[in-house]
Amino acid sequence: MNIEDVHSAFTSVQNHIISKLKKFDAKVFQSHDEWKRTEGGGGKSYAFANGSFLEKGGINFSDVSGSNLPPTALSGRPELNGASFRAMGVSIVFHPFNPYVPTSHANVRFFSAKTKDGKNIWWFGGGFDLTPYYPYEEDVIFWHQQAKNLCDSFDQNLYSKFKKNCDEYFYLPHRKETRGVGGIFFDDLILKDFTTTLDFCIKVMEVFAFSYFEIFSKRKDLSFGEKEKNFQNYRRGRYAEFNLVYDRGTHFGLQSDGRTESILMSMPPVANWIYNWSPEIGSKEESLYKNFLKPVNWLNLQI
Amino acid sequence: MNIEDVHSAFTSVQNHIISKLKKFDAKVFQSHDEWKRTEGGGGKSYAFANGSFLEKGGINFSDVSGSNLPPTALSGRPELNGASFRAMGVSIVFHPFNPYVPTSHANVRFFSAKTKDGKNIWWFGGGFDLTPYYPYEEDVIFWHQQAKNLCDSFDQNLYSKFKKNCDEYFYLPHRKETRGVGGIFFDDLILKDFTTTLDFCIKVMEVFAFSYFEIFSKRKDLSFGEKEKNFQNYRRGRYAEFNLVYDRGTHFGLQSDGRTESILMSMPPVANWIYNWSPEIGSKEESLYKNFLKPVNWLNLQI
Repeated sequence: MNIEDVHSAFTSVQNHIISKLKKFDAKVFQSHDEWKRTEGGGGKSYAFANGSFLEKGGINFSDVSGSNLPPTALSGRPELNGASFRAMGVSIVFHPFNPYVPTSHANVRFFSAKTKDGKNIWWFGGGFDLTPYYPYEEDVIFWHQQAKNLCDSFDQNLYSKFKKNCDEYFYLPHRKETRGVGGIFFDDLILKDFTTTLDFCIKVMEVFAFSYFEIFSKRKDLSFGEKEKNFQNYRRGRYAEFNLVYDRGTHFGLQSDGRTESILMSMPPVANWIYNWSPEIGSKEESLYKNFLKPVNWLNLQI
Repeated sequence: MNIEDVHSAFTSVQNHIISKLKKFDAKVFQSHDEWKRTEGGGGKSYAFANGSFLEKGGINFSDVSGSNLPPTALSGRPELNGASFRAMGVSIVFHPFNPYVPTSHANVRFFSAKTKDGKNIWWFGGGFDLTPYYPYEEDVIFWHQQAKNLCDSFDQNLYSKFKKNCDEYFYLPHRKETRGVGGIFFDDLILKDFTTTLDFCIKVMEVFAFSYFEIFSKRKDLSFGEKEKNFQNYRRGRYAEFNLVYDRGTHFGLQSDGRTESILMSMPPVANWIYNWSPEIGSKEESLYKNFLKPVNWLNLQI
């Protein structure tokens, strides 16, 4: 295992997706920061705003280390209490202008620790999920089919497991809704060996970028009005709720004294809250709630 | 101790402040719901929107009970694990249109429990705090002076303690900012006896309403432009962050399967996030950060 391989592979992925975004949205405004963390490590944040198609987004890389692991990272692993650690990740969020284009998020992360009794521990995590406002069923099936093809090329059992993880992770219990239509999500991942697991993570990001920009290109020029924009901004409130109330990455970042502006780069540009709002019966907005915001077997797989 | 006295006093307070709001903003749109909770109890929610001066707000009463206290309510009190409980509260949030009028929040709450070994426990909590966008120092001093006068009429030691609680509670560590200019905040409160403590809580709400509408009336007609509105919406993002990441009431509500729309009635109508934004040097916006969003001894008290 060579930790520096992760560093170089993750920064390549970051650069690759930045180029891809700029190809699809040449006018997007970019700001770039490099930051350091007092306790160790730092990152490169690329924030995007006010493009022709992207309203707000971020493509972040971070590589942080420390001598004393914070409690949020410990769930179920008491042996890591106080361990020294190094954690790397690439995290991407796209909030497009057009309500017909879904919001999407992807990340890969690597975690390694040395416990107090000298044991080395490592794993990878990551995944991607899609949050449409006005979903097209064919896009959702395409999204999941791409994810399945990728998973199957490593192991036939991965997709179903990772798809279920994703539905469970991106769930808002207080709303009884999934955040969107899911995708794949994995944590504590160790495939055959270190190199295979790293390779899988890189492909996760490549498949994410391919699938997302396919859907993005197909829907970015659809015409929309104030009604659709208002609904998008209302649903963005759910996105804010998920990230601030439930997201483990956000909590880990805020607790480990990470860089706030990079952690919260995932927030939508605008979010609205309207008391007790619900969609009209029979409307396109209602269809999102009824047909999409719950776990669905999109590929009709035998379970 | 008569629990029903709390119920009737709290509902009177709710009605009193609703009348007061309507006097100050006759055109505000009101929606009213009564709701029940499966496990026990329920509430009355009054939501307000699109008034002449109030953009969004809520005045809620809830009275919930259960046979098994959820973990969020236990901090430091393991004897309450699994206790049967009854919790009542009035919670108020006002998000005005005009960025020169502060947002404000107040609540009072009563908690009683019967532990597994038959012990009865009760306490009150509550407080109020002010979140200005373009603060006037005289308003902030007035706000704190009213709070101090009230506290002093019960006990000369209360204000300093409750003011400090408020500064500590309404703090965003990831931003290194207080939410606003504070006020008073108390929990686990038992004054001389039950009746005195209930009386104090009722006065807390009366003083809140008096002080807030004084400031509201003074600033509601000041003219403002897009710049001020944008800044207000940006700062409302901090309000959303505080409520969703840190607020114990929100977490308790969401974990105890409370009514989501009532719990999140405190959310602002709009919140914006702009990556890495900071105010111009020497601007009024910068003055908020430099002079107000930190604990300040507004009444120049000897400490």
